Amino acid sequence: MLPVDLPDAVRAALLAPLVDHHCHGVRRDELSRAQFELLITEGGTPAPPGTTHFDTPVGAAIRRWCAPVLDLEPHAAPAVYLARRAELGAGEVNRRLLEAAGIVAFLVDTGLEDPDLLTAAEMGRHGGAAADEVVRLEQIEQDVAEMAQIAVDYMDSLAEELAARAARAVGLKSIIAYRFGLDFDPARPSRGSVIAAANRRLSYPKERLSDPILLRHLLWTAVDVARERGLPLQFHTGYGDTDLDLGRADPARMTGFIRAVQPIGVPVILLHCYPFHRQAAYLAAVYPHVYVDIGLALTYTAAGSARVMAELLELVPFHKQLFSSDCYGVAETCHLGALFFRRSLARALRERLDEGEWSVADAARIAHMIGSGNARRVYRL
Amino acid sequence: MLPVDLPDAVRAALLAPLVDHHCHGVRRDELSRAQFELLITEGGTPAPPGTTHFDTPVGAAIRRWCAPVLDLEPHAAPAVYLARRAELGAGEVNRRLLEAAGIVAFLVDTGLEDPDLLTAAEMGRHGGAAADEVVRLEQIEQDVAEMAQIAVDYMDSLAEELAARAARAVGLKSIIAYRFGLDFDPARPSRGSVIAAANRRLSYPKERLSDPILLRHLLWTAVDVARERGLPLQFHTGYGDTDLDLGRADPARMTGFIRAVQPIGVPVILLHCYPFHRQAAYLAAVYPHVYVDIGLALTYTAAGSARVMAELLELVPFHKQLFSSDCYGVAETCHLGALFFRRSLARALRERLDEGEWSVADAARIAHMIGSGNARRVYRL
Amino acid sequence: MLPVDLPDAVRAALLAPLVDHHCHGVRRDELSRAQFELLITEGGTPAPPGTTHFDTPVGAAIRRWCAPVLDLEPHAAPAVYLARRAELGAGEVNRRLLEAAGIVAFLVDTGLEDPDLLTAAEMGRHGGAAADEVVRLEQIEQDVAEMAQIAVDYMDSLAEELAARAARAVGLKSIIAYRFGLDFDPARPSRGSVIAAANRRLSYPKERLSDPILLRHLLWTAVDVARERGLPLQFHTGYGDTDLDLGRADPARMTGFIRAVQPIGVPVILLHCYPFHRQAAYLAAVYPHVYVDIGLALTYTAAGSARVMAELLELVPFHKQLFSSDCYGVAETCHLGALFFRRSLARALRERLDEGEWSVADAARIAHMIGSGNARRVYRL
Repeated sequence: MLPVDLPDAVRAALLAPLVDHHCHGVRRDELSRAQFELLITEGGTPAPPGTTHFDTPVGAAIRRWCAPVLDLEPHAAPAVYLARRAELGAGEVNRRLLEAAGIVAFLVDTGLEDPDLLTAAEMGRHGGAAADEVVRLEQIEQDVAEMAQIAVDYMDSLAEELAARAARAVGLKSIIAYRFGLDFDPARPSRGSVIAAANRRLSYPKERLSDPILLRHLLWTAVDVARERGLPLQFHTGYGDTDLDLGRADPARMTGFIRAVQPIGVPVILLHCYPFHRQAAYLAAVYPHVYVDIGLALTYTAAGSARVMAELLELVPFHKQLFSSDCYGVAETCHLGALFFRRSLARALRERLDEGEWSVADAARIAHMIGSGNARRVYRL
Repeated sequence: MLPVDLPDAVRAALLAPLVDHHCHGVRRDELSRAQFELLITEGGTPAPPGTTHFDTPVGAAIRRWCAPVLDLEPHAAPAVYLARRAELGAGEVNRRLLEAAGIVAFLVDTGLEDPDLLTAAEMGRHGGAAADEVVRLEQIEQDVAEMAQIAVDYMDSLAEELAARAARAVGLKSIIAYRFGLDFDPARPSRGSVIAAANRRLSYPKERLSDPILLRHLLWTAVDVARERGLPLQFHTGYGDTDLDLGRADPARMTGFIRAVQPIGVPVILLHCYPFHRQAAYLAAVYPHVYVDIGLALTYTAAGSARVMAELLELVPFHKQLFSSDCYGVAETCHLGALFFRRSLARALRERLDEGEWSVADAARIAHMIGSGNARRVYRL
Repeated sequence: MLPVDLPDAVRAALLAPLVDHHCHGVRRDELSRAQFELLITEGGTPAPPGTTHFDTPVGAAIRRWCAPVLDLEPHAAPAVYLARRAELGAGEVNRRLLEAAGIVAFLVDTGLEDPDLLTAAEMGRHGGAAADEVVRLEQIEQDVAEMAQIAVDYMDSLAEELAARAARAVGLKSIIAYRFGLDFDPARPSRGSVIAAANRRLSYPKERLSDPILLRHLLWTAVDVARERGLPLQFHTGYGDTDLDLGRADPARMTGFIRAVQPIGVPVILLHCYPFHRQAAYLAAVYPHVYVDIGLALTYTAAGSARVMAELLELVPFHKQLFSSDCYGVAETCHLGALFFRRSLARALRERLDEGEWSVADAARIAHMIGSGNARRVYRL
């Protein structure tokens, strides 16, 4: 699995079980080719006529690395791969791929309420791992908006519901990058402006929240809850589906918010970040409460992931980087996330050892910190 | 020419003739050293006293790779190179360098109306290749503005002229990145606002168009024509001459326009993109009608081009990447564009084969798609 | 010290003394561990509980490369390193590390008025090098604001004081990236607007200047002085401490100002630039008066610095790149700045030689230009 020879201690640290601090459920049902293809792209549309989403870096990686887990030769053709997948059945495929990922704990974003997705507990059971919940703020808000009658109800229910859900969770997550952009006004909105906005909101409660005042109110309510319970706050940043404007998902755009939260001490965790991972590493280097991972980016850059990892390592403090697979929909993304994390980090460590930059002991220690130690500390696992 | 050993099938795919989907004419006349130096920089000014534009990555590459095509030793001194160039004459130099590029079809942006530049047909003849035209929108607009008397004439003539020129072309091209920036309002402008702006425009018809309403009107007129004729629409993005603001040439800034065009189905092709090629690859990965190339960037980064190619390959679907030399002015830029495309792709393929990420058959197939297959499909050649 | 074998001429060029065109004084006093840790981060705060700023790329590099200069084994533990540092004393440590850097001239930004920092002359003496001064604009402005009584005094004194200080200096430096951002209005402000702003300014003269009109006035006054005396104007860009918004420190944001200064002919030097070094290289490639270095970035990316250097080299003309250590506070940052400059450039040259891209003579010549020749020309040393 590792692309280079490494001293035993470093190899062991890389192959040790990982804490996957950000992932989603995978589908429990059998998938058609069309469904499978839509789950291996962030695009949300079929590939153009005459093409296939298998002709992408992640598609090639599925054929290369997941095929053997299903007893096929590497580089199996897409049709062969999907036929074998159907033959084994979703349950067996999920078990094999989640186990192959070598993960000791899944922290699952439960904000996608699709009954076809495995729950957090099921992810743990299939993957032979512990499982905990990360609460998605915008999903709580949606529930509250649909129930509340008046603005004050909305505000009270939001705080109560967030506190209640946080009590059973290990972290909170914001997708304000999708709903507005990371260039939001960092200040906590005034009570008056929130009441006015909530009144407007209650007239279209089924729609996705996009009002910047309520998005900020949600965020600051989450900061209060996170501070009380000692929880970190995750943010989607960078690369994602077509709901976001990539330029506005640069984590450097939320520098004002990061500064505002600094005295409160709530950890801010920047997810994915690509292609702004250097900006994210900078923020983690200069703000004591900022952490970073590049989960999704490694899965999707696949054969090119070593460079992305290397770029993050240029500046990020060793105690500030986390691992996530950001898997979603198909268990292939979990296996590949873990695989390319280990392969890309292995290359970076091999280089530093070859050039005499780091000692073997440091390399092993740092691999352990990034793979699980930092997450255990930040999430108090 | 290739920097690494490769299996025969992959080697053959890389050395196969390329479709150059975006280039310009090269000069037919003899050039002084001062003229030549100005054509190997995007800067538009002589190098500072005591320095030379040969002391750049592209300058070093000319001495290294073009010198042997003119029967000189690699690394010939600039004066020696230019003396030999003069000795052979522009016609012979152009023939040698264009042929050495190994191109089967030139798609020529004919928007630079300089009689000293080879026409599309001449480019084909000199390079032993087919030749087709890509129509530059802003040049059509300039012609129309100079002829029209009143706003309604302007609008009608623009649509007619674009349709007439498109009938003989394989694509359209916008340089709105130069004239305004890619952060333009994506909406089609109202007829009233266009008439008002056209009336203003007709009082200074000789100037370059910079009015954002008319630039958007031009673009949307082009979308209509492109849809009718099944043509793709190219956009200059990223690195270019000093007319543009680099930050506003980030293709992610035109995400709104890309979304607006998506239901219409007109292919949007992002040219050059450097240093925003990762943003461009993202757009190509998530929007089904977006394509990408990094032509100019490879020529100008020269010895450093392998990294740029590798970064593009991190995310771009294999069916979404195209080749262009973006040659202009001197045929050296055509040879180098093709050379560094093949060399940088060769390195990326060698790496993926070494690491077992791709099969030999896939590597050959993908090289063929990027080098010519995708362009044949998108441009219906 | 160099990570690769190189032909003698190239090796000699790389090991030749460097002109450090941008640095700060290092501390003359003994430092506690807490003080030392704060000087090896741009963050300004202690590392979170249970972590240390030694667990960063630069921290690992200190243990690896500075430990032997203090007679310790590579990879010495932080406590061992700091004990040995205390044992030798600050004077001896500074002498050893500054000398090990192999620098022939320090151009020192004297804008940090801390008596614990070595002066320019002392930096030279400790490092066995010549020393010259670079005047920080904002520090002059602060002095003037505290002395002036009325707006006209302020303007007159500013021009006089800048001229007087420039007479003894080799360059001027702006930190407008910290005080406002590089997206400032490029136009010279009107006299009326400056007088009004100066009157406001004189009511809070002890505060840091943040008024954009006065910052622009300061800059344009500096342009006048620089033109008269033939001095270059340095700009902090990119990566820095938490006073700046990273996104607004992208040097491409000051394109308008660069264009405005072009006819005046004052050299504009972009410092650091990371992670916008490709944008900086572009600006240096297309504007004849723009120069670039990546001093701070190499020190802080340490084991990952080769990639940063390689990315800068993609586009920057060979006559436009300079060396700086950007050392500050601890002499370790001087040694590491020079070390990673030489190591990363060595790798880039080795690659170009291996691939036959550059001749040995060119590689040696270019190393010499970047290491000292360009600085001698631009600063007229």
